[in-house]
Amino acid sequence: MKHHLMIGTWTPPGAIFTVQFDDESRSLDLVKRTEIPQDQPISWMNFDHDRKNIYGAGMKKWGSYGVRSPTEIKHDSSVAMGGHSKAKDADTKTRAIFVLAGKKAPHLVYGNPFYDYAGFINVHNVHSDGSLKENVQNAELDDRSAVHGMVFDKEEEYLYSADMWSNKIWCHKKDMQTGLLSLVGAATAPDSNDHPRWVEIHPSGAFLYVLMEAGNRLCIYNIDQQTHMPVYTGQTFPLIPPGMDDFHPKMYRSDVVFASSSAKYLFATSRSNSPNLTGYIAAFKLGERGEVEKQICLNPTPTSGGHSNAVSPCPWSDEWLALCDDEQGWVEMYRWHNEFLDRVAHLDIKEPGFGMNAIWYD
Amino acid sequence: MKHHLMIGTWTPPGAIFTVQFDDESRSLDLVKRTEIPQDQPISWMNFDHDRKNIYGAGMKKWGSYGVRSPTEIKHDSSVAMGGHSKAKDADTKTRAIFVLAGKKAPHLVYGNPFYDYAGFINVHNVHSDGSLKENVQNAELDDRSAVHGMVFDKEEEYLYSADMWSNKIWCHKKDMQTGLLSLVGAATAPDSNDHPRWVEIHPSGAFLYVLMEAGNRLCIYNIDQQTHMPVYTGQTFPLIPPGMDDFHPKMYRSDVVFASSSAKYLFATSRSNSPNLTGYIAAFKLGERGEVEKQICLNPTPTSGGHSNAVSPCPWSDEWLALCDDEQGWVEMYRWHNEFLDRVAHLDIKEPGFGMNAIWYD
Amino acid sequence: MKHHLMIGTWTPPGAIFTVQFDDESRSLDLVKRTEIPQDQPISWMNFDHDRKNIYGAGMKKWGSYGVRSPTEIKHDSSVAMGGHSKAKDADTKTRAIFVLAGKKAPHLVYGNPFYDYAGFINVHNVHSDGSLKENVQNAELDDRSAVHGMVFDKEEEYLYSADMWSNKIWCHKKDMQTGLLSLVGAATAPDSNDHPRWVEIHPSGAFLYVLMEAGNRLCIYNIDQQTHMPVYTGQTFPLIPPGMDDFHPKMYRSDVVFASSSAKYLFATSRSNSPNLTGYIAAFKLGERGEVEKQICLNPTPTSGGHSNAVSPCPWSDEWLALCDDEQGWVEMYRWHNEFLDRVAHLDIKEPGFGMNAIWYD
Amino acid sequence: MKHHLMIGTWTPPGAIFTVQFDDESRSLDLVKRTEIPQDQPISWMNFDHDRKNIYGAGMKKWGSYGVRSPTEIKHDSSVAMGGHSKAKDADTKTRAIFVLAGKKAPHLVYGNPFYDYAGFINVHNVHSDGSLKENVQNAELDDRSAVHGMVFDKEEEYLYSADMWSNKIWCHKKDMQTGLLSLVGAATAPDSNDHPRWVEIHPSGAFLYVLMEAGNRLCIYNIDQQTHMPVYTGQTFPLIPPGMDDFHPKMYRSDVVFASSSAKYLFATSRSNSPNLTGYIAAFKLGERGEVEKQICLNPTPTSGGHSNAVSPCPWSDEWLALCDDEQGWVEMYRWHNEFLDRVAHLDIKEPGFGMNAIWYD
Repeated sequence: MKHHLMIGTWTPPGAIFTVQFDDESRSLDLVKRTEIPQDQPISWMNFDHDRKNIYGAGMKKWGSYGVRSPTEIKHDSSVAMGGHSKAKDADTKTRAIFVLAGKKAPHLVYGNPFYDYAGFINVHNVHSDGSLKENVQNAELDDRSAVHGMVFDKEEEYLYSADMWSNKIWCHKKDMQTGLLSLVGAATAPDSNDHPRWVEIHPSGAFLYVLMEAGNRLCIYNIDQQTHMPVYTGQTFPLIPPGMDDFHPKMYRSDVVFASSSAKYLFATSRSNSPNLTGYIAAFKLGERGEVEKQICLNPTPTSGGHSNAVSPCPWSDEWLALCDDEQGWVEMYRWHNEFLDRVAHLDIKEPGFGMNAIWYD
Repeated sequence: MKHHLMIGTWTPPGAIFTVQFDDESRSLDLVKRTEIPQDQPISWMNFDHDRKNIYGAGMKKWGSYGVRSPTEIKHDSSVAMGGHSKAKDADTKTRAIFVLAGKKAPHLVYGNPFYDYAGFINVHNVHSDGSLKENVQNAELDDRSAVHGMVFDKEEEYLYSADMWSNKIWCHKKDMQTGLLSLVGAATAPDSNDHPRWVEIHPSGAFLYVLMEAGNRLCIYNIDQQTHMPVYTGQTFPLIPPGMDDFHPKMYRSDVVFASSSAKYLFATSRSNSPNLTGYIAAFKLGERGEVEKQICLNPTPTSGGHSNAVSPCPWSDEWLALCDDEQGWVEMYRWHNEFLDRVAHLDIKEPGFGMNAIWYD
Repeated sequence: MKHHLMIGTWTPPGAIFTVQFDDESRSLDLVKRTEIPQDQPISWMNFDHDRKNIYGAGMKKWGSYGVRSPTEIKHDSSVAMGGHSKAKDADTKTRAIFVLAGKKAPHLVYGNPFYDYAGFINVHNVHSDGSLKENVQNAELDDRSAVHGMVFDKEEEYLYSADMWSNKIWCHKKDMQTGLLSLVGAATAPDSNDHPRWVEIHPSGAFLYVLMEAGNRLCIYNIDQQTHMPVYTGQTFPLIPPGMDDFHPKMYRSDVVFASSSAKYLFATSRSNSPNLTGYIAAFKLGERGEVEKQICLNPTPTSGGHSNAVSPCPWSDEWLALCDDEQGWVEMYRWHNEFLDRVAHLDIKEPGFGMNAIWYD
Repeated sequence: MKHHLMIGTWTPPGAIFTVQFDDESRSLDLVKRTEIPQDQPISWMNFDHDRKNIYGAGMKKWGSYGVRSPTEIKHDSSVAMGGHSKAKDADTKTRAIFVLAGKKAPHLVYGNPFYDYAGFINVHNVHSDGSLKENVQNAELDDRSAVHGMVFDKEEEYLYSADMWSNKIWCHKKDMQTGLLSLVGAATAPDSNDHPRWVEIHPSGAFLYVLMEAGNRLCIYNIDQQTHMPVYTGQTFPLIPPGMDDFHPKMYRSDVVFASSSAKYLFATSRSNSPNLTGYIAAFKLGERGEVEKQICLNPTPTSGGHSNAVSPCPWSDEWLALCDDEQGWVEMYRWHNEFLDRVAHLDIKEPGFGMNAIWYD
């Protein structure tokens, strides 16, 4: 069977690359390069609930791209970053970094500014075709906040946000009618050097997995069923081999964490700042409620991963995982089989800033 | 080496029994029966911080007994139950059920009334010899509260209380100067039929173990290091064989849970209401932070356990556990060795209401 | 559903007791006491391949009992012990101890004499109705041999015998046409004090489980797929709590080991020589090939077990286990559920020598 | 601390490379290239018992090199391959492949011819300085035998040999006086496509680990303590991700297996025939008797490994492992720490046929 995935770039001129993965011949091929506005290279993209629109975090703007087919992708609209008045200014470092679409009506789109002046979650509504319409809320965080990843619980009632710069995990309640956010609270990361970058949640709603960029570890949180706040369990797992950061301080930055389609496994990656040091991909076995039963592996990735090393588990099968690298510029496909990981395909795409995250279209 | 333990009775006339356990010959012998006020049979007793006083939960009063040697025990004073004005009345069901002494100065003594009019923690100060002086605080709980067991964290800053009738676990902060309590909050048990009866805590302060009398299970709680509130992890273990309560509804009542001296193991017991059904003793293996790694066993006890089946791990060795039964009236000694449990001694004491809990003197 | 089991006695006058277990009401009732020849009390009995005959080890003879229904059991024939000429003499200690029927044609019946003059496996053919006909082979072992238990592999090509007195496990090849035995070899037990008493085999043919009566342990053997000989793996598990035999030397004797119907579990028991010391029942988890993954429990039994404590897993369900005791004379039913063991029924039968092993009829 | 390792090449002109590993700065440097006879490039080398001589498998001869210091290595003598008369002929494919020195007097040296005419173990005595003297025995195997690796048990009484071409594991008894071999027997590999290439043994003498080159798996054998023959336990672990050989048939060849210094871990590697497919390194956790408790990892190696990918655990520490590759020509150092594997140093050596196995000098 043939699958299509879209992948972005984080530096100009920017483009959306459609690649095809054939899971029988195990080949990866580039099938389309879609031009996009050159000032909006996409560092993170996500589909809407029915895969008809791609939302992209594109420098100073949130972009919206209609998808008719794997090779027919069209820029529809963009909305400037909201929140702090300086965020959208050309001379500030503020940059759109992550975007998440509500799966339930009214299908609002939630985005995170990053770096300076980033202390807000930008919330947007959409036109009837799903394209971005306008900023409808800027949920205030701390002055120094810089959220890099967010996740909704399965019922989409609570939103959890990993805030690298204020070293917190935020919990917001989503109004089920309007989709707007109200603050529940924030939990400080267990170590001042943790810097939460990514969050994943188990479908049971019992466990939140918080990836610490600077701490280079995965911290397991319970979700208090009465308050819905995340509570650190004290359980933690390394995302780089223990001791490597003592010898190479500040050379590793953990990246992302995602559950497999069945939620029986969790995959997380880390990157390094040097081509001489590989990144890593870890797999974890989850129990029924989402408890981590064990770390299965911590395999080196082929390269440092550069600014990426983002893993994208297939949303409808535990078998396939895409991995993107921007040190050398490629996407690879891995097979997860019998709890072992094997690289089955490799595709070089030598374009500036390739490749950020891969999203599975079909 | 010879050890002495004291054991109480829960029905009049009441007495304190001193038994001697020789860990070489593995014999258990009765060495002393100490008379006590006949209206104060002791359903639960505890030592003070240096084992010079025994405090007893004695019907309508909190009693205080000086201990000069294993065989020289003398009633010093008693204080009436506090809290609700009807608690101490002879015609109410209210009964002193559990008592706990502060290990840190000012060495206050904390007691739980039970059944009706029991919605308070009675707090008492002591004379210079450690004998009970007077009621100094009655920390208010719910109207319908009936706490059956309490535990302090290692630093004695927070007190956790298992409230059977309001189905909650309470958290109080202890003033380090005065020893008085102030409420932090309460967590409702996960199931309305749980009825928390007992709490144990790990020295790490990371985990609270809550024994559910009606739920017949042990529920593992995280302690939120920011709020100090217990948060249910969703992890639970059976204290009777799964399915036995379906076939014999309301015939089992779980009893107590205690950590071993090293805190590497946890022991918990359950009782039945029928001499045809045995009680059970469970052992659990704990990790360094106190996480439960696995349930090691769920062994039947020799009898139903009656109103007791209380296990008392030796406070300075993981090797020995005392177990008391009041169906037939005996105390037994068990050896915990290589993670197996063996009964090594048995002593019948055929007195009314024998035997409640055993406390290790030396 | 109602199940019937038959149970023997080991002392005169002897009888076969039929009990009924109702797995819904969880009741055990005596439904029939069948008289048998008074000089042939049965210390071990087994069904033939289609449960139409019971073969019994009855003192000096091998007995044969037709079974029309749970309550219609009739003695058909008996054959004197074979092998050594003195075995059947009234004034020798030799005693028929164990009997096993071939499930494949020609359905020979294999029996073990015990104590003195016991160095042979007695082999018998049967009439067309399955009743015992005559001794057709006496497979020679050592002079001092005394085998107490045997088991065929699933294909019934190889027979393994546990020889207590010569401290060996024997392997014989069965002729698939005639059913007669030829020697393959013998493996000496790893410790001179082991005294193999019982053998169970996994359906995979990869593992043999050898219960050591004096060693009070279960030793795991590989079966060499080239030679079919058992080879000790070095893996062993205790059948009494470790250290109990140091304190109570020669007071424990392990009894039997059987796999559950699905072969996912293994159950083994031990007995003591004193009513003050309980016997034990152990359960083990088996992997697909039959490897022992872990010891699940080592629960005390209600009594010492006396000469029995034999466990009889139900042949068509992992859920039910019968346990017989002759210290007090009873049979109990246990439920194996979620890897926990619970006693669900008890039946006293106060007859001399009750009760040896229980066999499941329906 | 600085360590020196020697590494060979398998193609002419051949050389011995001395590299230095500094475990503090974590650097790897080439410190010496020692010329050797150009017709004797070394595909496998080993030290004698006190590290004063290197024995090399050098094409048609067994070579002997005195080692005064890491940088003073001198060719002393060579002995022609023995066994079949055609083995040493220049026009046959027969090639010296593996060599092992007795650690006990008389310190004989045991070598394996490979490919055609290889059905013998060549045994050699040595001069007083440890240099090779002459062929003293050619222990006969099968006509088609081609042994690729051998190991002695700890007492050096039994020698186990992995025979790829006759698909067997041989067991020989060593005469403790003369050092000469006598045949005990041979066990056929469980699968006809296994092709045993390497053997490692646990110090307990209870387990033999057999690496299957074509089977790409590690098979765990018991050693029968009565016969000393290896008996397959049925337990097996993959050395390439399961399924990879179905998609890439005959593209993988497993390489070597070695225990760590403490014998608590086992490391094994595999190679591929294509630079597009990585090799793998696996680690296993061993129990006290040598049983494999679990496979810890199966990490991709940086390259295919070429003809090598040989791992060399440090003989006096579990912390360091050398890995050699001849696809690109390098040696790397890995740290084994907290049961994770990290690459800590890399050294390119661009010489023909570099690098075969690394041996630790100090």
